[in-house]
Amino acid sequence: MEEVELVCTDASALVEAIGSLAVRGAPLLGIAGAYGVALAAARGFDVPEAAQALEGARPTAVNLSVGVRRALAAYEAELAGSGEPAAAAEAALAAARALHRQDAEASARMAAHGLALLGELLPGGGHRILTHCNTGALVSGGEGTAFAVALAAHREGRLRRLWVDETRPLLQGARLTAYEAARNGMAYTLLTDNAAGSLFAAGEVDAVLIGADRIAADGSVANKVGSYPLAVLARHHQVPFIVVAPLTTIDMATPDGAAIEVEQRAGFEVTEVMALQAQVTGAGGGIPVAPLGTQAYNPAFDVTPPELVTAIVTEEGVVSPVTGEALAEMCAAATG
Amino acid sequence: MEEVELVCTDASALVEAIGSLAVRGAPLLGIAGAYGVALAAARGFDVPEAAQALEGARPTAVNLSVGVRRALAAYEAELAGSGEPAAAAEAALAAARALHRQDAEASARMAAHGLALLGELLPGGGHRILTHCNTGALVSGGEGTAFAVALAAHREGRLRRLWVDETRPLLQGARLTAYEAARNGMAYTLLTDNAAGSLFAAGEVDAVLIGADRIAADGSVANKVGSYPLAVLARHHQVPFIVVAPLTTIDMATPDGAAIEVEQRAGFEVTEVMALQAQVTGAGGGIPVAPLGTQAYNPAFDVTPPELVTAIVTEEGVVSPVTGEALAEMCAAATG
Repeated sequence: MEEVELVCTDASALVEAIGSLAVRGAPLLGIAGAYGVALAAARGFDVPEAAQALEGARPTAVNLSVGVRRALAAYEAELAGSGEPAAAAEAALAAARALHRQDAEASARMAAHGLALLGELLPGGGHRILTHCNTGALVSGGEGTAFAVALAAHREGRLRRLWVDETRPLLQGARLTAYEAARNGMAYTLLTDNAAGSLFAAGEVDAVLIGADRIAADGSVANKVGSYPLAVLARHHQVPFIVVAPLTTIDMATPDGAAIEVEQRAGFEVTEVMALQAQVTGAGGGIPVAPLGTQAYNPAFDVTPPELVTAIVTEEGVVSPVTGEALAEMCAAATG
Repeated sequence: MEEVELVCTDASALVEAIGSLAVRGAPLLGIAGAYGVALAAARGFDVPEAAQALEGARPTAVNLSVGVRRALAAYEAELAGSGEPAAAAEAALAAARALHRQDAEASARMAAHGLALLGELLPGGGHRILTHCNTGALVSGGEGTAFAVALAAHREGRLRRLWVDETRPLLQGARLTAYEAARNGMAYTLLTDNAAGSLFAAGEVDAVLIGADRIAADGSVANKVGSYPLAVLARHHQVPFIVVAPLTTIDMATPDGAAIEVEQRAGFEVTEVMALQAQVTGAGGGIPVAPLGTQAYNPAFDVTPPELVTAIVTEEGVVSPVTGEALAEMCAAATG
């Protein structure tokens, strides 16, 4: 494995990095969006235009839009007040830094709330937790969302095993979560997304922990494609299905699951295998595995209805059972 | 895509081809096993020893064992009778050819029974069928099992879309089913196994059609890993889940799902990406995608309990609802 630093010196490079998923994960998208606005302001670009481009780089994770708008609002308020572009740029940067710091704090609080919830639901310890996609330090100002809870359990000696779904098509589980688990010395095992069913059937999963890209007002959860099948399996096997996400992921302006825009991505992510070291021959820069001209259905996310979600954990606490009323109450308490 | 002919001139080469999945798919394994015995006999090898090696090459698909034993029984009966090894080798070859021919016939009859069942369950036509792994001409003496049903629907103008699961880790869907669908001019779309849940949720799947590697006496179905999650999704969405397999797949000596031995395969199938054209660097001959030393859980099959299977289609007809009694009756009628 290799860690590479990608330097984005203007907002359009950042938009591209977001589109190609070099920068990804709901909380981190929010932070990156806010810094992107600050960057455009500092370098004298058209700030509202940059904000629009950043906000439109990916449609599903609402955190991106939240981050962009916070920094833009700080910029515009300062500009309207002082009329000083430099001061406005400073204000945007301060807003981005505040969001970054808040996200790190939220991460620690989600981990604490999630750990307490695990203790209630599974009092024996020795947790075997299944996770999907990547939700650790690589997506957060802190230690992440779902992964941070598993990591907290690990530190308490209560994690028996982290089951890591590889998460096709882009293998965030194999490439990123396995890396974060290894780096933290956690007992983890990688599996194809297909093999999760066998684990449930064998009674080897005590809880599912995932993140979220957008939570609608009714509690519907948009997350990486493959989350919904896990929710259905978890329900079939009476296993808790727990969503961990900061408040910025809850979008009261989206009434329900049907209203969530799910990003459809290019077919080559499915029809070609990406391999950095390989000689590339396909249109998407990978090695074709399916016949030429094969059409692919490639939604980046799916939507899990609230009735399949055991609990939503945020930095403000735990909502369970998941209802629109309970969510609204938590959001109101946090902002009130 | 490229078709390559792999010539196995002795049984041990065939054992290796079966182990590496160059020869795969339950019905074809039976045919290959029978020809393997005939080959060992024709070339003067120790026939019972070759039979044992062939039978042990993969544990889950019972057809392999059935094919090997039929050819071995023919060989031994002739040897015991005439005492002539050459005649015994001929008898083994005749048994293999008979199995090959029977499989092609069974394929056509399964397709007819399956098509009739689809007509009953989905009288409107315009079927949107989801399939998993590869079950066409590449696994059969004829046109296959589940795929043959979809192909029959296509020929009748009743197939609106074939949804092809890519089928990780070895991508039999992307590499083989997509190829067979394209070759037959069928309307097909490839998807990651993760995306099947979104299709169900969107109401885009009218039926699931899969093959089987072993069907236990109680109707439990072992098939390619990822089949069981589809069965759970299908039940959750009230979509028929149909298993298509020849009688040779039904193993009355295996009482139930728990008694089916599920092959566990090497972790590198999950931790590395296989790409023919690529420079290989990993232990399994592929490109590593997970951190070095990552442990993988890699069962080749999973087991679906009979209560989640809407119907089992064989060359002798349709069993629905799936019960041990109904299966036993069909098997008795076929051999009686």
